[in-house]
Amino acid sequence: MLLTADTPVSAAAVFTTNKTQAAPVVVSRSNLDLSGGRAKAIVCNSGCANACTGDAGMGVARSTVDFVAQKVGCRPEEVLVASTGVIGVDLSLQKVQDGVTKALAALSRDAHRNAMLAIMTTDPFPKEAAVRVETASGAFHVGGMAKGSGMIEPLMATMLGFLTCDAQVDAAMLRKALTSVTRDTFNAITVDGECSTNDTVFALANGASGVTIDDSLYPALEAGLRAVAKELAIGIVRGGEGATKLVTIRVIGAREWAHAERAARTIANSLLVKTAIHGGDPNWGRLVAAAGRSGVPFELARAAVRIGGIVLFDRGQPYDQNAEKAAAYLSGKEIDIEVDLGTGGAEQATIWTCDLSAEYVRINADYRT
Amino acid sequence: MLLTADTPVSAAAVFTTNKTQAAPVVVSRSNLDLSGGRAKAIVCNSGCANACTGDAGMGVARSTVDFVAQKVGCRPEEVLVASTGVIGVDLSLQKVQDGVTKALAALSRDAHRNAMLAIMTTDPFPKEAAVRVETASGAFHVGGMAKGSGMIEPLMATMLGFLTCDAQVDAAMLRKALTSVTRDTFNAITVDGECSTNDTVFALANGASGVTIDDSLYPALEAGLRAVAKELAIGIVRGGEGATKLVTIRVIGAREWAHAERAARTIANSLLVKTAIHGGDPNWGRLVAAAGRSGVPFELARAAVRIGGIVLFDRGQPYDQNAEKAAAYLSGKEIDIEVDLGTGGAEQATIWTCDLSAEYVRINADYRT
Repeated sequence: MLLTADTPVSAAAVFTTNKTQAAPVVVSRSNLDLSGGRAKAIVCNSGCANACTGDAGMGVARSTVDFVAQKVGCRPEEVLVASTGVIGVDLSLQKVQDGVTKALAALSRDAHRNAMLAIMTTDPFPKEAAVRVETASGAFHVGGMAKGSGMIEPLMATMLGFLTCDAQVDAAMLRKALTSVTRDTFNAITVDGECSTNDTVFALANGASGVTIDDSLYPALEAGLRAVAKELAIGIVRGGEGATKLVTIRVIGAREWAHAERAARTIANSLLVKTAIHGGDPNWGRLVAAAGRSGVPFELARAAVRIGGIVLFDRGQPYDQNAEKAAAYLSGKEIDIEVDLGTGGAEQATIWTCDLSAEYVRINADYRT
Repeated sequence: MLLTADTPVSAAAVFTTNKTQAAPVVVSRSNLDLSGGRAKAIVCNSGCANACTGDAGMGVARSTVDFVAQKVGCRPEEVLVASTGVIGVDLSLQKVQDGVTKALAALSRDAHRNAMLAIMTTDPFPKEAAVRVETASGAFHVGGMAKGSGMIEPLMATMLGFLTCDAQVDAAMLRKALTSVTRDTFNAITVDGECSTNDTVFALANGASGVTIDDSLYPALEAGLRAVAKELAIGIVRGGEGATKLVTIRVIGAREWAHAERAARTIANSLLVKTAIHGGDPNWGRLVAAAGRSGVPFELARAAVRIGGIVLFDRGQPYDQNAEKAAAYLSGKEIDIEVDLGTGGAEQATIWTCDLSAEYVRINADYRT
């Protein structure tokens, strides 16, 4: 997959926090530093993650960047690179160069579908989104594509996101907006609590719309990026390995956002919660226990659990008379769960996740055997 | 289950860190404080956790303690109580009293098998252990029983452990030893990363052997408690829901014990690691990635992965030529995994866990449906 701008444009990225970082992550971070947040091209291969490949892997990532820079006419540090696929396997520079040559010949404003198919590994469907943002200074657009978590690779699949924007944004502001938006979107999803060696979100902004983002328009930029990133992030969860339901976990009643986020993430990654949802079991006890073990302030006597708006637990008391209604609700495909931590605080956080099915185990256990 | 001493003896406990704490946990902690670490009896029911049951549940736990105190002839604060089973369901005081009456009639030094059967919920087998510790001052004994993680209850099952010792130990020293031993045994196991509202380990020491534990004999006390606790803890993992393999995760090369422990726990709870082991896949990449995301110092270029002593990754290089041998090893029932964090530190930690099977999902998803 090759994504290019007519000239070098503002660029920003958010990378995996995993300390095992793949070669493309190391090279892209370094290039953004060297270029001061400018890029003319992003190149991505799927099938090989180029991770845990030592010095040879770093060489392939750097040579890829050099090759693309020469072909599109820019400096090497103005090229960003991403990889997804099998870990610990050498990436063939020849294959990458052949792919880049083919992609160059097919470059087109209308080729977004080819691009989003090219970055997939085992995703069950491609993911793209776009919005038009109206402002007092005119309209601009944000588009994006992502690949997610079809986890039949020998290592986990990687989450990759590519966002483009036709507003004029300086690199520092683009980085600020991307970091903020990623917190609530790509970083607010979990399939199985794993974090890849290659996770990356890139954003480019070329100014073609004629709209310049200043402080007064900054909220519009964030809103546009957020709308696209959220749609892509939710798409990744929907395509999670073995997933049959999209689950939105909202934790309220926290004194700090970080408390709400941690409780929501603990609930979202709880095997007992995920299996209960898979089985359609309105098991408020598992939600209360997961919140309780998350390590954040939690007041059982004032806590509450609602599933699809149906109260199952409130201020220390079970509402088991509502269990049947909640079980019917859980037979649906989109599940909303709300947990009040009971501290009286006004902070809240949302995490999107999926249920855990026997299919997940089968896919991830039986890959090589 | 009723466990009694002839007179009040030294007592200590370690309780769940879950902020959702069941009534028996609250009452037992308070009683140990009030009695200054003395107890004459422990009472335990299975089938109902008496958790999330509000003031009524606290009343039942307190009345249970009062009833037992009256029957065995001690003060209420010299009785400890534990429950395991369904959360959010009222515990019948009448049933508890009937059970205590029957247990009193059957009290005997030889009734340990009945006791360990009584505390089970859905454990596939009972768990008990005992050791004789020889010292320069004579021999003493440590015995114990535990129930674990058969997780088909609406909430997780609880981990409960009951240790007895016939050495003379003051309560503060017993608490110190129990806390130290629990860290490396009951707190070093994980089936699915969940932590119950009721988890409790109790220890009693009655001095009947005539051996008094002073500072010089303290290591012998710890060794005895550790041997019994370790055997019980590993038994709990073997009986984990859907478990087909016992997996020992040893992380070495850490600068601090806490780093090694956190990395080992992250690996032990990784769904991708647990499913790979279930499928017999020698997937070192998943181990490296889990260590990398655990948030502790990790040097990929000096890290190593060995499965059953077979090197699969060392100093940045895969050893895929050993994959077939490692896959054969993984077909066994007892799996040793070693990960070197590569920081050059001498600290290490061990966590015991089990594989994740489709059976786990089935059991936990299909409970009510």
